[in-house]
Amino acid sequence: MSDALISLVRDGVDVFDLGRQLSVGMPQSPNHPQFWHTLHRRHGDSYRADGSSAANDMITTGTHVGTHIDALAHVSHEGKLFGGVDALQAGVGGKYIEHGVHTIDPIISRGVLLDVPNVLGLDICKPGYEITPADLELAESDARVSVARDDVVLIRSGWGQNFDRGTEAYVGKESGVPGISEAGAHWLASRRVRAAGADTIAFERLAPGGGHTLLPAHRVLLVEQGIYIIEALDLERLAESTHREFTVIVIPLNIYGATGSPVRPLAVVPS
Amino acid sequence: MSDALISLVRDGVDVFDLGRQLSVGMPQSPNHPQFWHTLHRRHGDSYRADGSSAANDMITTGTHVGTHIDALAHVSHEGKLFGGVDALQAGVGGKYIEHGVHTIDPIISRGVLLDVPNVLGLDICKPGYEITPADLELAESDARVSVARDDVVLIRSGWGQNFDRGTEAYVGKESGVPGISEAGAHWLASRRVRAAGADTIAFERLAPGGGHTLLPAHRVLLVEQGIYIIEALDLERLAESTHREFTVIVIPLNIYGATGSPVRPLAVVPS
Amino acid sequence: MSDALISLVRDGVDVFDLGRQLSVGMPQSPNHPQFWHTLHRRHGDSYRADGSSAANDMITTGTHVGTHIDALAHVSHEGKLFGGVDALQAGVGGKYIEHGVHTIDPIISRGVLLDVPNVLGLDICKPGYEITPADLELAESDARVSVARDDVVLIRSGWGQNFDRGTEAYVGKESGVPGISEAGAHWLASRRVRAAGADTIAFERLAPGGGHTLLPAHRVLLVEQGIYIIEALDLERLAESTHREFTVIVIPLNIYGATGSPVRPLAVVPS
Amino acid sequence: MSDALISLVRDGVDVFDLGRQLSVGMPQSPNHPQFWHTLHRRHGDSYRADGSSAANDMITTGTHVGTHIDALAHVSHEGKLFGGVDALQAGVGGKYIEHGVHTIDPIISRGVLLDVPNVLGLDICKPGYEITPADLELAESDARVSVARDDVVLIRSGWGQNFDRGTEAYVGKESGVPGISEAGAHWLASRRVRAAGADTIAFERLAPGGGHTLLPAHRVLLVEQGIYIIEALDLERLAESTHREFTVIVIPLNIYGATGSPVRPLAVVPS
Repeated sequence: MSDALISLVRDGVDVFDLGRQLSVGMPQSPNHPQFWHTLHRRHGDSYRADGSSAANDMITTGTHVGTHIDALAHVSHEGKLFGGVDALQAGVGGKYIEHGVHTIDPIISRGVLLDVPNVLGLDICKPGYEITPADLELAESDARVSVARDDVVLIRSGWGQNFDRGTEAYVGKESGVPGISEAGAHWLASRRVRAAGADTIAFERLAPGGGHTLLPAHRVLLVEQGIYIIEALDLERLAESTHREFTVIVIPLNIYGATGSPVRPLAVVPS
Repeated sequence: MSDALISLVRDGVDVFDLGRQLSVGMPQSPNHPQFWHTLHRRHGDSYRADGSSAANDMITTGTHVGTHIDALAHVSHEGKLFGGVDALQAGVGGKYIEHGVHTIDPIISRGVLLDVPNVLGLDICKPGYEITPADLELAESDARVSVARDDVVLIRSGWGQNFDRGTEAYVGKESGVPGISEAGAHWLASRRVRAAGADTIAFERLAPGGGHTLLPAHRVLLVEQGIYIIEALDLERLAESTHREFTVIVIPLNIYGATGSPVRPLAVVPS
Repeated sequence: MSDALISLVRDGVDVFDLGRQLSVGMPQSPNHPQFWHTLHRRHGDSYRADGSSAANDMITTGTHVGTHIDALAHVSHEGKLFGGVDALQAGVGGKYIEHGVHTIDPIISRGVLLDVPNVLGLDICKPGYEITPADLELAESDARVSVARDDVVLIRSGWGQNFDRGTEAYVGKESGVPGISEAGAHWLASRRVRAAGADTIAFERLAPGGGHTLLPAHRVLLVEQGIYIIEALDLERLAESTHREFTVIVIPLNIYGATGSPVRPLAVVPS
Repeated sequence: MSDALISLVRDGVDVFDLGRQLSVGMPQSPNHPQFWHTLHRRHGDSYRADGSSAANDMITTGTHVGTHIDALAHVSHEGKLFGGVDALQAGVGGKYIEHGVHTIDPIISRGVLLDVPNVLGLDICKPGYEITPADLELAESDARVSVARDDVVLIRSGWGQNFDRGTEAYVGKESGVPGISEAGAHWLASRRVRAAGADTIAFERLAPGGGHTLLPAHRVLLVEQGIYIIEALDLERLAESTHREFTVIVIPLNIYGATGSPVRPLAVVPS
């Protein structure tokens, strides 16, 4: 007998794809191995007896490339991972059995979009701008939602509009990149969210010229609070809709011992 | 305001993970590049000024490795892809822009489990056994479901119990592997399903000693009918439950031009 | 009984290493997959019963990355490889069995250094400067050598001094890069050399802002003449010596069907 | 003016290629990432304005795959590398700056072939057979050579004839593999050789069913003596010749911090 979820799905849902397409040459951080895709067998290379053929391909990629989720094992502070796990010991053997991405259960939760430039009257937050707790609460109020425990909070800075302008523009090493910093991370932690994401490569504010020298929001969320981070989201189409509250689905690849995984998050609403 | 889907999710759902863990050395077809995962930076390799550090890693993998979905571009017959697309021309440029895995929309549909060995009174279907339309209908009847348009049909042969026994046992080149063949594929096509999956590496029946010499079900589904195929599913825990009808979520990575993608399908039911 | 070559080697030889070190982040063309090196197992990850351990690693790389040799299969003109081989047909099967890098015998030949900036009274040839046959003959005369059949000719532009200044400086897409062009290639062909190399990423002259839009010297050498090209050589230390004539050793990896290979060429002279 | 080495080379040399061809599917140890080669761009994928096109490819491979050299950083014993270097500390940063393969100078030395099965009256040494110092001295005597300081010693077991029989036969996990063990390694050390090679995947004797559980010759040579090891050589054609003494050339790729490198060693003799 069909359950209520099946009925809902059959009645129709709208799906917002929050993941970036993975293509050779797309913007990514130079700290991580480049995404590459190649066909090693194409149709016509060989045929089976019945006239059929298969085309096959491979990818090589860093796990923090494209839209991706950070496992708790990704960041340590003063030698510790979340929960006080010894960070050096955790990596012995070449995989993070504790806090690796395989320990993240697939996420099906309420999602909330906080559209910061919209409430600030901007198209895009300025490079290097720190999104404050006050900004987050303004966006929350505008969304008529109260961010709560286990939510997945998606913070739009508008910077995602730079994705198609290439690595230099999107990574923003020289320009800086907008985002929350330590204060915003504490705000998210106070709401006890499950995961937080943004439309930038590093999730948090980067100072102009600074690169990834300090990442305090990563420390607060991944090391102190056990809150996952999702990076390089495409939030543009969702922002253009009226949906600020939705069901979000994030399914990391179950890579044993990895520090992250490419993901293709979805925001889903009944049609 | 929360929608009905959010309410359902908040009331609680049970999630069955149908994907295999990706780990170095897991069983896979030797026709495809091997899955590998490696940490290139571990905690302790370097520290930021504030005492934090990041651990980073990479993967290399064929796209038909682990639990994965076949795009329509994967198989051709007599020089044609689905819809009569010229298979040689489609690959020029090194990516399949037509029928590549990036053209598969994320799937949120009704799923149906057809537990074949259960209705045959077996633990596992015999190596090389062809699952017939009659077997499928028996399992359908046992499930008290009528397979219908846009469903995702998961055909359990029990062979997934061999996954932990290594490549030779699971790939089954010598032994053969159970599964549907051309007749079963026509049955699925007659029900106009969106995708079909199985708990084996090749989805369809392999004759003992034959390997992948002929794959008629692939031809029917991918080339003639435009029905996606999902391989190397883990259906054991779902089979142990009473759920034969559920919501299935399959989100391929959006790899531009690829012939397949690793996926981690979920079966979801209200708690 | 020791032969004359062994005696010579035992008396001592000086070896000039003309290859660039392969390291993550080194300059390379963005058209080719990035060089990456990663340790997947480090000492301490596990121990054998006797207290020993092994550390293991992997590389991923384009074959035209770092100092490398171009096989004849690398370039086609109007659908033909060297010798009139059909270029499309040659690639069917996913490897170039004809003219692949595996068909290049290891090279042990006389080498000649043509130090162009030196005879022009420069440190480095100007960006985008075309090295002419007259320049080559001036350098040849200065070297007191007559370039002859089966020689390996190494053309120094001085541009190699930019290697340590990063990808943008070395690849020189905006600035242009010095080198021979069609006329210089014809000069090399008239001398019937076996291979020609340079201290730049593309071997031949690149116009400012132009990138790899046209590569006439590649066409002349690889397609019309069957002369191998070696790129990204380090000629600085050799140029500082007095040696303009020497034995050159170039041993491509024997990669079946590849279009190129990393190499570490040596110039060798008796001490 | 041409030097004596150039004259020798011009008079003609015979080159014996001691490296195995690198091809997808060749035998290799399952402990190391698989060799893969793939063309990501083929002729016909795109054309430059003048009708030319380039075909490009990539490789992914473990560094201990195919014919390769072990750097001293590859093996530790009781936490130490050669010279007492702390093995754990040496790997911090993800590369072995001490004793990495980039520290191996290109080798141009006298080489000596010790053809063990020939002096034992066999085609191939038996699986799991330990080649003793007495066997080595018998072969040395037969070669009419006295192995001396800085030589490269190539120990033929005949096992290389199994290379074309596939991974199971060549790796020989079940059967065992012939080779020297601790005593033979001490013999090599007593002669103060620079490097030692063999025609097997692990260089030293493997007991039947044992795999790589203990590798005492690796310990003696790499950790205690600082003598490089070359594995998976093709010694068949050289053995068929009369040359037992020759010039050997081994040029590792200059991979910064790696534990090994593919190599294509040559044995060279005046014609």
